[in-house]
Amino acid sequence: MTIVDNKKHGLIFAADLGGTHLRAATVDQKGKIHFRFKQNTPQVKDANAIVDAIVAAVHEAGGVEGISAVSLVVPGTVNVQEGVVVKAPNLPCLDGFRLAAALSEKLGIPAILENDANAAAVGEMWQGAAVGCNTIICVTLGTGVGGGIILDGKLWRGVDGAAAEIGHMCVDPFGGVACTCGSRGCLEVFASATAIVRMTREASPRYPDSILQGQDNWTAEMIFEAGQQGDELALEIFRRMGVYLGIGLANLINILNPEMIVIGGGVVNGWDLFEKHMHQQIEERAFPLLAARVKIERARCGDDAGLLGAVRLALLDRIT
Amino acid sequence: MTIVDNKKHGLIFAADLGGTHLRAATVDQKGKIHFRFKQNTPQVKDANAIVDAIVAAVHEAGGVEGISAVSLVVPGTVNVQEGVVVKAPNLPCLDGFRLAAALSEKLGIPAILENDANAAAVGEMWQGAAVGCNTIICVTLGTGVGGGIILDGKLWRGVDGAAAEIGHMCVDPFGGVACTCGSRGCLEVFASATAIVRMTREASPRYPDSILQGQDNWTAEMIFEAGQQGDELALEIFRRMGVYLGIGLANLINILNPEMIVIGGGVVNGWDLFEKHMHQQIEERAFPLLAARVKIERARCGDDAGLLGAVRLALLDRIT
Repeated sequence: MTIVDNKKHGLIFAADLGGTHLRAATVDQKGKIHFRFKQNTPQVKDANAIVDAIVAAVHEAGGVEGISAVSLVVPGTVNVQEGVVVKAPNLPCLDGFRLAAALSEKLGIPAILENDANAAAVGEMWQGAAVGCNTIICVTLGTGVGGGIILDGKLWRGVDGAAAEIGHMCVDPFGGVACTCGSRGCLEVFASATAIVRMTREASPRYPDSILQGQDNWTAEMIFEAGQQGDELALEIFRRMGVYLGIGLANLINILNPEMIVIGGGVVNGWDLFEKHMHQQIEERAFPLLAARVKIERARCGDDAGLLGAVRLALLDRIT
Repeated sequence: MTIVDNKKHGLIFAADLGGTHLRAATVDQKGKIHFRFKQNTPQVKDANAIVDAIVAAVHEAGGVEGISAVSLVVPGTVNVQEGVVVKAPNLPCLDGFRLAAALSEKLGIPAILENDANAAAVGEMWQGAAVGCNTIICVTLGTGVGGGIILDGKLWRGVDGAAAEIGHMCVDPFGGVACTCGSRGCLEVFASATAIVRMTREASPRYPDSILQGQDNWTAEMIFEAGQQGDELALEIFRRMGVYLGIGLANLINILNPEMIVIGGGVVNGWDLFEKHMHQQIEERAFPLLAARVKIERARCGDDAGLLGAVRLALLDRIT
């Protein structure tokens, strides 16, 4: 792995490569964003086309002058030491690809790689909800459910760099809902945006008077808005989602005894609808000492959590 | 906290204070046990009577000469830095008691304190199944279900010293079985010795031909022996226990990505009856990369795991 020279007071070019969007920014050492970039992720079979898109973004930002390093986050399992994408289900062309080395060679500056949910946890601890904390768990409720675990200031990546798969903790083993991971009853099938829509579809026949009836292409956001208007179907879905999230968080609290759990991702917009149910499960299921200690907070960095975490990791030479 | 002087090549007096028995040993720096001691735990309301019992055991072992430190493990939450028992449900007279300081004052040598399941994990990594590993989870299936987590060679105690409550991970939230912790569906209500007996009692009406029928005072050991003889009731109970254990272990694998999980405690005697069912759940529920990596092993230190871990912690000044 190429190492960032911290002595230079340069900028970091951070990129968050999602299944849908490539978002990037040049960021200084205080976390201030100087330039932003967003485009659709190239839907390609060749990893080099993704490298080219990131290189083009760097040039659009003004080139490598003044940039100390490129720091990239991807939605998948990463070998951090080697800068290799091990497995990225939504970007399969990257599986096994030496992405950090390819970027570093093309740009002539160091490049590092991290999992997106891990980076989001680091971002929230650097600039967001968990400033001042040392031991946090970050849960990202998006299309799927991701997680990042920071223990005593250090990212816990596990022995294969694949820890913190919080979305695939089982919270209802016999509930019957199959997960894309091959298991069933995972937190992801109850607390992701995808799950909110699926549960609404499943429950909708029981709520003929719902204002959601007759609409097409439900999104989690639409269902949340219906809930804000008091729609019983939407309220039931967010109740259910909050119950399962609370069960999962209680497990994490009993296993890891963290200072804080930060909840981010698009679904966190539904906070007012699910918060009460989530807290109730934590109160019923986590050890009182631990439940009283842990703070459960909404993420504050929004879509920038991963980018900011990427910057922080580059600045720290991955000490975290 | 008093610190052990490692430069002395003395013995460690280790004591494992259980709800039922006080077991102790003088152990050298290679883990060799020189003297053993066992008595019933004093059933008292005064913590000083427990201190006196440990002091008496030290004197029975030949006194403090040659002993570098006393290292004590207890079944409860411990503040390691202060040497205080925070909460010990089976030894409530110790709640809030400065046990390490009390022992150190009476004996004139340093004393340290640790949770018993944490110490068992350290013992298994020093002298047992996990020799050579750095990142392990130890699950102890006894009267209850305890846990110890070692990450990169270091015990993970959590911010309040109360992490690794693996027995209180929820594996069946709506299964209806209440746990002593106040929650329901915890791993402990399916995988402890107590749970084996309870599940047998609950299922027995459906197995009128079981060889267990007509016997009184079932123990997990008796039920295991019936299972070895092919008894259908006993086999069903260990199948069920193995399924829930496997669900819990798959969660731990997905969350922490460990090298090894070590399973100890009396119920591990039923290994041949539950192993297959446990592995099947792990295979179905854990991420394939992580499931292929992790070794699931029986503990090898038996009842001495906690004592040996106590010794190791004293020798390392708690670096682990």
